[in-house]
Amino acid sequence: MSEKKPFATPGAATELEEGVALAPRFGADGLVTCVATDAASGDVLMVAHMNAEALAKTIASGEAWYFSRSRGALWRKGETSGHTQRVVEMRVDCDQDAVWIKVEQVAGACHTGRRSCFYRAVPLGKPGTVKLEFRGERIFDPKRVYPKKD
Amino acid sequence: MSEKKPFATPGAATELEEGVALAPRFGADGLVTCVATDAASGDVLMVAHMNAEALAKTIASGEAWYFSRSRGALWRKGETSGHTQRVVEMRVDCDQDAVWIKVEQVAGACHTGRRSCFYRAVPLGKPGTVKLEFRGERIFDPKRVYPKKD
Repeated sequence: MSEKKPFATPGAATELEEGVALAPRFGADGLVTCVATDAASGDVLMVAHMNAEALAKTIASGEAWYFSRSRGALWRKGETSGHTQRVVEMRVDCDQDAVWIKVEQVAGACHTGRRSCFYRAVPLGKPGTVKLEFRGERIFDPKRVYPKKD
Repeated sequence: MSEKKPFATPGAATELEEGVALAPRFGADGLVTCVATDAASGDVLMVAHMNAEALAKTIASGEAWYFSRSRGALWRKGETSGHTQRVVEMRVDCDQDAVWIKVEQVAGACHTGRRSCFYRAVPLGKPGTVKLEFRGERIFDPKRVYPKKD
């Protein structure tokens, strides 16, 4: 984390829940959860994380920035793929440890080539082993969009 | 965590992403993130967490169960308030560390009395201090619904 403190410090529950100050409760890892939904369809596109810098950049620019836990790096969505997210609206939840952004998604949000990362359904109420059911089609070829890993 | 292992063990990325086995990647805390959206409006109602038992109970019963990090306890949504969530559909994301449930929400999901926990908007692209804007009205009185905390 940088030394900059762009947001208010989280206070008592009443203030967090009923106040007008954005005081995100970053976890021990410095992150809040971010849910991105498709502004057009309402579908959940992805769940990712933001540190203070990613959140501040998203608010300032109206483009989605995240913090990649696996790469340990700040990341503008679409910087490699071109599949950017323009933020139409941002919300924060009651205890300010999660944000919801409604976005205009270019092409697809998922690195596997689908529109949404949530392309498999989990059948409910069936005893025994769960067998996932595919729902989303591939809309782009990830091999053409992402550079090869080694 | 209990000794029961109701789900497959997460394997290689290809299997996780393109397989039909539900193999949730529970974090070091034993939890996956769960996003609940309103099956009718598409709005995000809440972001919470599930351990293996909560996930298994949700799949088996079609009612949302969570694990409360603050209380350290399994929790059926609505068990105190009556504001249950019937799961219409469940999805899992590409790397299986998050689930999305579309639910029929009785009354409101938020303990503050709103339909959704995301009742405040964060204005975008405005320099200076962020001032949250209230969007959701109270639809129930939390004092009548939840027992007093000592």
